[in-house]
Amino acid sequence: MITPLASFDDLSVGQEFHFGSVRMDLAEILDFARRWDPQPFHIDPAAAAAGPFGGLIASGLHTQAACFSHIIRSGWVAQVSMGGAEQVVRWPAPVRPGDEIAVSARIEALAPSRSKPDRGVVKVLYTGRRQADGAVVLEILGTHIFRR
Amino acid sequence: MITPLASFDDLSVGQEFHFGSVRMDLAEILDFARRWDPQPFHIDPAAAAAGPFGGLIASGLHTQAACFSHIIRSGWVAQVSMGGAEQVVRWPAPVRPGDEIAVSARIEALAPSRSKPDRGVVKVLYTGRRQADGAVVLEILGTHIFRR
Repeated sequence: MITPLASFDDLSVGQEFHFGSVRMDLAEILDFARRWDPQPFHIDPAAAAAGPFGGLIASGLHTQAACFSHIIRSGWVAQVSMGGAEQVVRWPAPVRPGDEIAVSARIEALAPSRSKPDRGVVKVLYTGRRQADGAVVLEILGTHIFRR
Repeated sequence: MITPLASFDDLSVGQEFHFGSVRMDLAEILDFARRWDPQPFHIDPAAAAAGPFGGLIASGLHTQAACFSHIIRSGWVAQVSMGGAEQVVRWPAPVRPGDEIAVSARIEALAPSRSKPDRGVVKVLYTGRRQADGAVVLEILGTHIFRR
């Protein structure tokens, strides 16, 4: 269980948080991709087998959404989140059906707002690692606004 | 209608493409956010009215997915797409229910692969503009692998 953040001021650079893992099931991979990223290597196992990844892989947008929603559902930012303005998203390795992805976060930078005393800007590096082999499959450097 | 790209080699830096628009309806905003980004300002109109945006706004992930899937469905990259490794996503202004977002793309950089003669790396800047006032609500700088 994660302890919900109470304030921007509770954070320090270098702090790490661990959120357990999310499993990327075939049915959800197909369902997400049919709606949001209908490319053959995400929705068609036969075409995917002959495609650039040698098999079906999850949409990168799905991996991003699955890990992000896992963190939102943990309640970690429920008391502090005031939205965000930017994410740099990287997919260093493909995600395949059945992969279990461990999700963690590290505080990279903290800057109190100069104009608004009730909030601060937080840069967080989220990492998704495939549990089977430790490979990093997702990195998100997110810029968030958190309440003080 | 957009003409599908036939090869990496058909592109040049500075080229622009226009994909029409996507409409962000309230029902889909709520549906997406309940599944992937259940924060009060995305799923609860009453809480959102009292929240940081003064009303309900779409999840940034939803705006990203809606514009991206719109491009995928246009068929623009269907013959050339071999996946992607990175996206830098910015949300300069909130998206509200009923907003119609015009989607365009500009080729920013082109680099043939040095190790694999059948492909090249393409950087594309996607822009989503709210049609009502021209405000930029989404920018995605995507790095893609396209077939030659």
